[in-house]
Amino acid sequence: MAKTAITPTRQENYPEWYQQVVRAADMAESSPVRGCMVIKPWGYALWENIQRTLDDMFKATGHRNAYFPLFIPKSFLEKEAEHVEGFAKECAVVTHHRLIEGADGGLIPDPDAKLDEPLIVRPTSEMIIGDAFSRWVESYRDLPLLINQWANVVRWELRTRLFLRTSEFLWQEGHTAHATKEEAVEETLKMLDVYVDFAENWMALPVIKGKKSEGEKFPGAVDTYTFEPMMQDRKALQAGTSHFLGQNFAKAQDIEFLDADGERKHAWTTSWGVSTRLIGGLIMAHADDDGLVLPPKLAPAHVVILPITFKADDPQKVIDYCNNLATELRQLYYHGRRIEVEVDTRDLRGGDKNWEWVKKGVPIRLEVGPRDMADDAVFMARRDKSPKEKQSVPRQQFVEQLTQYLDEMQQALFDRAKAHRDEHMRGFKDREKFYKFFTPKNKEQPEIHGGFALAHWCGDEDVAAKVQKDLGVTIRCIPFTDPLGEEGEGRCIFTGKPSPKRVVWAKSY
Amino acid sequence: MAKTAITPTRQENYPEWYQQVVRAADMAESSPVRGCMVIKPWGYALWENIQRTLDDMFKATGHRNAYFPLFIPKSFLEKEAEHVEGFAKECAVVTHHRLIEGADGGLIPDPDAKLDEPLIVRPTSEMIIGDAFSRWVESYRDLPLLINQWANVVRWELRTRLFLRTSEFLWQEGHTAHATKEEAVEETLKMLDVYVDFAENWMALPVIKGKKSEGEKFPGAVDTYTFEPMMQDRKALQAGTSHFLGQNFAKAQDIEFLDADGERKHAWTTSWGVSTRLIGGLIMAHADDDGLVLPPKLAPAHVVILPITFKADDPQKVIDYCNNLATELRQLYYHGRRIEVEVDTRDLRGGDKNWEWVKKGVPIRLEVGPRDMADDAVFMARRDKSPKEKQSVPRQQFVEQLTQYLDEMQQALFDRAKAHRDEHMRGFKDREKFYKFFTPKNKEQPEIHGGFALAHWCGDEDVAAKVQKDLGVTIRCIPFTDPLGEEGEGRCIFTGKPSPKRVVWAKSY
Repeated sequence: MAKTAITPTRQENYPEWYQQVVRAADMAESSPVRGCMVIKPWGYALWENIQRTLDDMFKATGHRNAYFPLFIPKSFLEKEAEHVEGFAKECAVVTHHRLIEGADGGLIPDPDAKLDEPLIVRPTSEMIIGDAFSRWVESYRDLPLLINQWANVVRWELRTRLFLRTSEFLWQEGHTAHATKEEAVEETLKMLDVYVDFAENWMALPVIKGKKSEGEKFPGAVDTYTFEPMMQDRKALQAGTSHFLGQNFAKAQDIEFLDADGERKHAWTTSWGVSTRLIGGLIMAHADDDGLVLPPKLAPAHVVILPITFKADDPQKVIDYCNNLATELRQLYYHGRRIEVEVDTRDLRGGDKNWEWVKKGVPIRLEVGPRDMADDAVFMARRDKSPKEKQSVPRQQFVEQLTQYLDEMQQALFDRAKAHRDEHMRGFKDREKFYKFFTPKNKEQPEIHGGFALAHWCGDEDVAAKVQKDLGVTIRCIPFTDPLGEEGEGRCIFTGKPSPKRVVWAKSY
Repeated sequence: MAKTAITPTRQENYPEWYQQVVRAADMAESSPVRGCMVIKPWGYALWENIQRTLDDMFKATGHRNAYFPLFIPKSFLEKEAEHVEGFAKECAVVTHHRLIEGADGGLIPDPDAKLDEPLIVRPTSEMIIGDAFSRWVESYRDLPLLINQWANVVRWELRTRLFLRTSEFLWQEGHTAHATKEEAVEETLKMLDVYVDFAENWMALPVIKGKKSEGEKFPGAVDTYTFEPMMQDRKALQAGTSHFLGQNFAKAQDIEFLDADGERKHAWTTSWGVSTRLIGGLIMAHADDDGLVLPPKLAPAHVVILPITFKADDPQKVIDYCNNLATELRQLYYHGRRIEVEVDTRDLRGGDKNWEWVKKGVPIRLEVGPRDMADDAVFMARRDKSPKEKQSVPRQQFVEQLTQYLDEMQQALFDRAKAHRDEHMRGFKDREKFYKFFTPKNKEQPEIHGGFALAHWCGDEDVAAKVQKDLGVTIRCIPFTDPLGEEGEGRCIFTGKPSPKRVVWAKSY
């Protein structure tokens, strides 16, 4: 078997492979604060590109950014019963506003500076944003109110994994208020579509979109919508959600308005969010046994140029040639962003440098030595192909076709992810086969199971709970359209009762 | 006296005027969480422009963004003695990670979920970023390490004021590590210059830059540098700071590297930051008795177009004319950003609309009615001039000269602020006159005092403490160059002892 840059490989140990990819690409690391990560520059630059793209999409759909307090008074959390049930058991509680020296000389929370009411570090901001909305909304003329916040949130987690599940994470949370139910539902679905657009066309992740079952929805929501891609271990990732909150939160928080008909009414609200978890999904979907593979549209650098100087009579000439090429490439735009180029002139062995950029997932690597210079050419490798597959391309041709190469790679990543998903998605009419599909072939590789199953379900949450207990499999969504094209009614494969449509079952992150 | 849009006026009650400007421009509001504000869309859009501009500057000087944990373990804070002294007395302390139902049915912190070690919500991140640096830095090849973080921080404040002083605020904090003292000092001063460039050329705020005296520097720093503009009430604003930390933090946190000479050494570090406080400074420096005045380079909208339709035979024609003009203007760029245009077609009285945009500080307002349309002209008002000063400009001329109008206004704001400062800055050789300069003429208007005083000081902190106690006046900085051009040695006006140069004294925010 060929040597790979990442040990272990995906086949050998998928969870450990993931950690090693993150480490090898220098994207993030654990911190001394339990469950909190440090996002390193390469990981953060990817997040900045995700942010900028989504932010443009939110603004293009009429939303404006604002910022609300980090802390939520305990009494606010108590206002919505399901909501508090969902978040109280895993939250960071601020109880004091000062430290003083204790008996042993170390610092302790000052008993004289105890807060009258504990504050919760926001796990999500429905309660504090809703409070502001109750002041901002007076008349139907103030609606719709379309707000987004970029922020950090904290949900105390005991078992964490970089990007995928951390106690503190970065996210955006959209919060909107509307005069009618119809408008709020429309907003909820519109933002789901924005997310799906972003996942498919920017992250190169094919997703299934649909509604969450009652058991899986957001605490306090009427309906939760989700979009779920398949990871390479065939598990689903809940990549983000969009919630139709009905009037639940408006009633808990007095978001009332005087309508055009002269009546006071409660508003209808929505919320929707995606987080740094998207980065985990991007890695799990596209990275390979040599490390990270970045979709070109979001890559912090599109191209890295490696001057090969060890055989050069005048190394500086090679470096100048590379810098000139970089300057020319940086004039180009690719999907609204300037082409980003790294020129790696560090005093390291060429092979080490090359592998470093392979592991960082840069879409295109160029090697340029004296011979290439003489031919006015570059030696090009594309990250989604084998590291050995390199080709010489005339310099001018490379410049002219660069954005096309990037588009090809972007599409190739999507196609590969879609082929993988389609290969591991099956419909079931039989409980036994369904159970077998999700039973790992090998106990040492629990991740190697079937994938996504489509099966009718009667809607009974107890049935879903039993499947979860037996197999660790949940209903990921009730898809808008059946991903295998088999629409229509049927019978629950567990109870035989009628079912309006098939739902998607999978193990998940 | 003319009616003004803001009540009270600056003369009548400056602190209250400030609050009313913020409110009238709809930039921010207090929240139910003590000391924490809500930054509303108009205020946040200004912050986004500040962020984007500074972020570009930081990147152009080689810095990369990253993200570090919100929480700092108590033991980390204890590592640097001066630092802990500075922050322990006003911090938010997290002690529990769960709420449970208490005896009275309300939620209480779960005694079984008490943290072994309390966590502090970061008041600044030297200690947590330094911990990461200690892992990231091994050899001189890893230096310099140039990192910036955009984040929220919390310093518990009892007396707060929107933007200027809040318990939670948004900021950026640069943190860098270097192999030599010289490089670290150079970085500290380079970032000070970046800030000064931003303040003067983007915020239109003339500033005095210099070094903080020992008594005013950052807890744990060797040297703190500052840049301070004068507000309209003649007080100084500490707009931001850049700290040379020497090896203090590197020693407290084991940031060591193997140098080229084979020896292990401690790194030299810096940190530097500006915050949402800048917005408070911008308001206090430029706003007038009619509300906010925005420097064009940072304005969330450069132009607002008000269709005047009440006399129009066909109102839609006027609106179409305005929308077409807006579309044309949005193709233009102004200092790297597209021209932002609002077209206000709301069903409100024209005068109300006009005043709303005056209060929001939009640089250029255009009124367009049927007569203007017939002339193919616009009726233009510039926010830094009297609201009554409007002129008709041919449409084509307006489009061609828009960026020039904006540049003129940007310069006019700077010039006005500089004239104000220069008018209220004086040198003193005499203690009595110095004291009189800072004594309010009228007890009901304590803000009306002299302004900035330049006076020799012997360097004795007790002398500075006495002045602060007597007058509420502090040493704002030891300026690099004397702002009134009177360089050189002299004698302390309080003690008669020798002094190397004059320092800047002022009341401050």
